[in-house]
Amino acid sequence: MSIENISNNKCFGGWHKQYRHRSSTLNCEMRFAVFLPPQINTGVKVPALYWLSGLTCTDENVMQKSGIQRVAAELGIAIIAPDTSPRGDDVANDDSYDLGQGAGFYVNASQAPWNRHFHMYDYIVKELPEIIEQHFPISEQRAISGHSMGGHGALTIALKNPERYSSVSAFSPISSPVNCPWGQKAFTAYLGAEQADWKAYDSCELINNATRFVPALVDQGNDDQFLIEQLKPQLLEAAARAKNYPLQLNYHDGYDHSYYFIASFIESHLRFHAKYLR
Amino acid sequence: MSIENISNNKCFGGWHKQYRHRSSTLNCEMRFAVFLPPQINTGVKVPALYWLSGLTCTDENVMQKSGIQRVAAELGIAIIAPDTSPRGDDVANDDSYDLGQGAGFYVNASQAPWNRHFHMYDYIVKELPEIIEQHFPISEQRAISGHSMGGHGALTIALKNPERYSSVSAFSPISSPVNCPWGQKAFTAYLGAEQADWKAYDSCELINNATRFVPALVDQGNDDQFLIEQLKPQLLEAAARAKNYPLQLNYHDGYDHSYYFIASFIESHLRFHAKYLR
Repeated sequence: MSIENISNNKCFGGWHKQYRHRSSTLNCEMRFAVFLPPQINTGVKVPALYWLSGLTCTDENVMQKSGIQRVAAELGIAIIAPDTSPRGDDVANDDSYDLGQGAGFYVNASQAPWNRHFHMYDYIVKELPEIIEQHFPISEQRAISGHSMGGHGALTIALKNPERYSSVSAFSPISSPVNCPWGQKAFTAYLGAEQADWKAYDSCELINNATRFVPALVDQGNDDQFLIEQLKPQLLEAAARAKNYPLQLNYHDGYDHSYYFIASFIESHLRFHAKYLR
Repeated sequence: MSIENISNNKCFGGWHKQYRHRSSTLNCEMRFAVFLPPQINTGVKVPALYWLSGLTCTDENVMQKSGIQRVAAELGIAIIAPDTSPRGDDVANDDSYDLGQGAGFYVNASQAPWNRHFHMYDYIVKELPEIIEQHFPISEQRAISGHSMGGHGALTIALKNPERYSSVSAFSPISSPVNCPWGQKAFTAYLGAEQADWKAYDSCELINNATRFVPALVDQGNDDQFLIEQLKPQLLEAAARAKNYPLQLNYHDGYDHSYYFIASFIESHLRFHAKYLR
């Protein structure tokens, strides 16, 4: 698996780098970004936090807008930022912002035309970590986080693979896609009309069925414009409470769905993950 | 002078807000952003740091990419981010990125067609602070900073108005526009062919003639793609040395011209300004 370096920016003593590669899982060319903390110069491998972005985003949003590099450089954690879907002229798409390119929802699509490329779940869980751990001085110690659609992705991926991630966190996640318009639209397209098939990608369902726990942290703004209709954190809270699942869910007055919220609390997520990565 | 609020985002306990207003100086509608730190809730006025952005930028770059709000919130400093030029369908423009809209160079244009709107110097020095100090709990304690073209703007404005700014800083400034292609092109258009008229907007000339000093901090990346041809910090350094001007100029190996560099060192600029704002 070869990768091509396409940008380099020194940042907080470490390096932000973008790469292009051919993904066999997604059947197209993909771009991802890494932040390599200065500790890679010491000759030991560093752990990694995977960050899954939300609808319409790419690898660039978290790297440009969250300020994540400052504390990652302090703690010696690499940040891995994949794109949010397969992309390209020959990849299926839709005119709306919440389906198709930029809206992969971190599932493996079973329905045409999406099933030809839209296997973001396998890409994030299997192919990308293999590439990362082959090409960079990054260990198999992994944490995962994300925002909105990416918060859903992080939670479901950690819940389905508790042996692969030491902790999980999310900002403003889509807490139960089977119970909100964004999720219902995407899952109908990608997974088909049979709602029973959707449950494999629903955080609340996965918590209900969990047998091994991954420590989880969620932050949610109370002035988030998507809170009531799409995000529904109370469903996540209820599922965790019923199961005695180790979820810390914090609500914040005045904060919205933007990266201004993420930037304000990203430090606490890094320190949370650092506790379990070591 | 009325202003219209067009966005609000809570950030680090304070507020990022954008406003639209009719500028009498620029003869068009303008947008600016403010970050109001949480200390405005204590009933005392807070000091302000004006941030001038570079070519092609708007008020949004520093607010979205620098992480400036974190330490501004800690220190109780408001951040004011104006646009980089007048804008609009009836405002003169040019097809190139380094002249016209997005490239005001913080001068008062004397030449047609630019002289109808391009008076960014007066807008930043006079009209904008009047608006800010009228509408927000912000004192007349001002510092000024900026990046690239905006670093040139911050340095020249502070050097020409030492009574109005307690300190000045810059990232990767155009140190001597009369001696580089960006400055020569813009000054020829805005100020005319007579090079003697350009000197009023050249930091090195202004240091040569300074009678009152404003403490100055400059950071420059050694891997900046514009370092040799456009930025020429050695001219600024030489001018300051000859005059014994209080300029601290730091070079940083590996860093480029991007906001990844600014984000890495913005904290030190805020702490520098805080020393003089109190």
